[in-house]
Amino acid sequence: MKQVSVGICGLGTVGSGTFKVLTRNAAIIAGRSGCNIQITRIASRTPRTDIDLGGVPFSTDVYDVVNDPAIDIVVEVIGGYDAAKELVLTAIKNGKHVVTANKALIAEHGTEIFAAAEKAGVIVAYEAGVAGGIPVIKAIREGLAGNRIDWIAGIMNGTGNFILTEMRAGREFAGVLEEAKALGYAEADPTFDVEGIDAAHKLTILASAGFGVPLQFNKAYTEGISKITPYDIAHAEQLGYRIKHLGIARRREEGIELRVHPTLVPQDHLIARVDGVLNAILVDGDAVGQTMYYGPGAGDEATGSAVVADIIDVARIVASGSSLRVPFLGFAPEAMENLPVLEMEDVQSAYYLRISAFDRPGVLAEIATILSDSGINIESIMQKEFEVKDGRIPVIILTHTVQERQMNGAIAELENLPDIDGKVVRIRAENFN
Amino acid sequence: MKQVSVGICGLGTVGSGTFKVLTRNAAIIAGRSGCNIQITRIASRTPRTDIDLGGVPFSTDVYDVVNDPAIDIVVEVIGGYDAAKELVLTAIKNGKHVVTANKALIAEHGTEIFAAAEKAGVIVAYEAGVAGGIPVIKAIREGLAGNRIDWIAGIMNGTGNFILTEMRAGREFAGVLEEAKALGYAEADPTFDVEGIDAAHKLTILASAGFGVPLQFNKAYTEGISKITPYDIAHAEQLGYRIKHLGIARRREEGIELRVHPTLVPQDHLIARVDGVLNAILVDGDAVGQTMYYGPGAGDEATGSAVVADIIDVARIVASGSSLRVPFLGFAPEAMENLPVLEMEDVQSAYYLRISAFDRPGVLAEIATILSDSGINIESIMQKEFEVKDGRIPVIILTHTVQERQMNGAIAELENLPDIDGKVVRIRAENFN
Repeated sequence: MKQVSVGICGLGTVGSGTFKVLTRNAAIIAGRSGCNIQITRIASRTPRTDIDLGGVPFSTDVYDVVNDPAIDIVVEVIGGYDAAKELVLTAIKNGKHVVTANKALIAEHGTEIFAAAEKAGVIVAYEAGVAGGIPVIKAIREGLAGNRIDWIAGIMNGTGNFILTEMRAGREFAGVLEEAKALGYAEADPTFDVEGIDAAHKLTILASAGFGVPLQFNKAYTEGISKITPYDIAHAEQLGYRIKHLGIARRREEGIELRVHPTLVPQDHLIARVDGVLNAILVDGDAVGQTMYYGPGAGDEATGSAVVADIIDVARIVASGSSLRVPFLGFAPEAMENLPVLEMEDVQSAYYLRISAFDRPGVLAEIATILSDSGINIESIMQKEFEVKDGRIPVIILTHTVQERQMNGAIAELENLPDIDGKVVRIRAENFN
Repeated sequence: MKQVSVGICGLGTVGSGTFKVLTRNAAIIAGRSGCNIQITRIASRTPRTDIDLGGVPFSTDVYDVVNDPAIDIVVEVIGGYDAAKELVLTAIKNGKHVVTANKALIAEHGTEIFAAAEKAGVIVAYEAGVAGGIPVIKAIREGLAGNRIDWIAGIMNGTGNFILTEMRAGREFAGVLEEAKALGYAEADPTFDVEGIDAAHKLTILASAGFGVPLQFNKAYTEGISKITPYDIAHAEQLGYRIKHLGIARRREEGIELRVHPTLVPQDHLIARVDGVLNAILVDGDAVGQTMYYGPGAGDEATGSAVVADIIDVARIVASGSSLRVPFLGFAPEAMENLPVLEMEDVQSAYYLRISAFDRPGVLAEIATILSDSGINIESIMQKEFEVKDGRIPVIILTHTVQERQMNGAIAELENLPDIDGKVVRIRAENFN
């Protein structure tokens, strides 16, 4: 049985999970891969005394791994940008295959990294970067390879989904966030998770692998969940919807939509039922229709599971001396299409609007006229007479799908009405049909 | 760009779907696969005049495809057993790779077919045979390859799931079955679908690919849904459960459980929310935890999507001249473990019991004593006083997990009690934890 040598850079959550899975399941992995995958070197800036490395040479310098001529596959799980990028590019230059869990690195520097790997004839695999243990990159690049992928939408951040799930009980965002921090679900600085940046990294990668377009993270629209209130969650429920923090990528003729924002989804759609820290990705293909991939999007061994799956894929190629490569972004580089990311104003969506109107006759007619004149059709409307407070009454509207530009115009007009108080609350909605 | 020749045998639902997807998405498929996949011959016993074959040579003899020296990949979508088996074995003997959607063929004759393919150095791919368009074989064989798979459970038959979904509205089995026939969801003879045989074929394959054990379809336990009543569905709901027709495979030290039967699943588990003709497969791995794969389990293009994904996988290997093979059943043949399928009496399950008791004092105590003496713990109990009819009262019990043997003994004792009328209704339950 041919031996394949793996070096692990980084021994945090994902690194230790990878080590544990590779070690514990060595016999199963040999049976599945047909080769003997050995961890021959581990490096991490901060050593861990709580893990028994079983005699594998350890170093605090990751370059001891990257420059070890005996190593076939470098696992990059140090995270972050610059140091990780340099590490990966050096590994590629040294002729090593790379397995990474670093979504930020791929979303922001993937083009450069993949080009270098292409030139060096090595593989860069990144399943663990998107949706943790869920093999969704494999599903899109291979399992659905016969499809024109039309859209991808999903819950790509467990922290945000945990918070929105808990808020359904009427709790405020800030309180649940504190709980998420206490439980270890949220970082001390939760910006990456709750503002949608982490989800946008994953979405950028999914969109490229699905549509065959360049990685364009800097064009992704991100809107966080910190302004979502239990009041809107409850009223969305009354309309038959739940609010989820979704990443949505849609392929249109003019370009692609690439956006992360709170979204109303129909209560009876499966994705509305994905609660807590779990992730789920919907993929719609022209042949297959809608499919969904669900599971843990984080965690040491769950993410380690995806790292190990990539290691096995690469190890089988190394062991067989094959030159076979699944294109990094699903499509051969020359088959990629340089579709732009659409401006947010060109996105198409349905909308939930909450308007604080003064309780005067004719207000509803004014609102309806503005929407109608802007070409916006109303799906349902709720006026909460019994909720009048300080002379103001909430009007809640669900619209059909329109161009965001139309909605922006209508909202500006609505906010100019003397009968309307303050800003209009606007949350996008998707019906997935 | 290297050309790869595909011959399609069978032009029914799946064959025509495969043809349509390959033809319509030819450019995307070339971009993803890096090769030019051409359909060079089609054969079907009954010609179809409603599909434009675009000049591809057509024959009514599938051996015109199988014996064509120019063809690299034979697609077997004629279905059935004997003719399909002969076709596939001949194709293998002729040195051709095979892509099939035939679950019955693989579940019942896979061992022989895979051995022949191994010897000939060709690939037999069968993603389309399990759960239609959902790439769950790929997920198990590759995406979760680092895991020890502990159990697999799922809704593997759309017809049965449609019927159970409709029955939630209080309708009887027979009436919904007629509707399913009228809608084209059920065959004139629905035995394969509603008695669990189709699901057992798929489960057999999933269990082998997941656990690395031989295909043992003839040992699978199957129980259909024809005896499920709206009454039991409603009472399961009151206990917080839904009834689904599940295939369940569990790896235990002594052997594997392989069983298809109606099953109570917790209402708040995602799989309880999979309605209509859709399929969903839960896979539990020791590293990743629970993941779920959801989508259409049938349909021309949905199943065609899986056939085409397999064609692309094989075509890339053909085009690159690689010898790389994912083992047919996930594990290298020498790494497979000859674990037996456990007798149904050795299976472990929770149970829903409905007992028709005469309305006399002490009956409940008698029932509780028998269960307790058999080592069976009660999770919840409902006695419907207001439902007394002809002096009989329904007692509904949900138990903790026990050995089926214990339950069989307890049920025999219960049915011997003079205070109990007729047979005890027993439906298994799973909590997935």
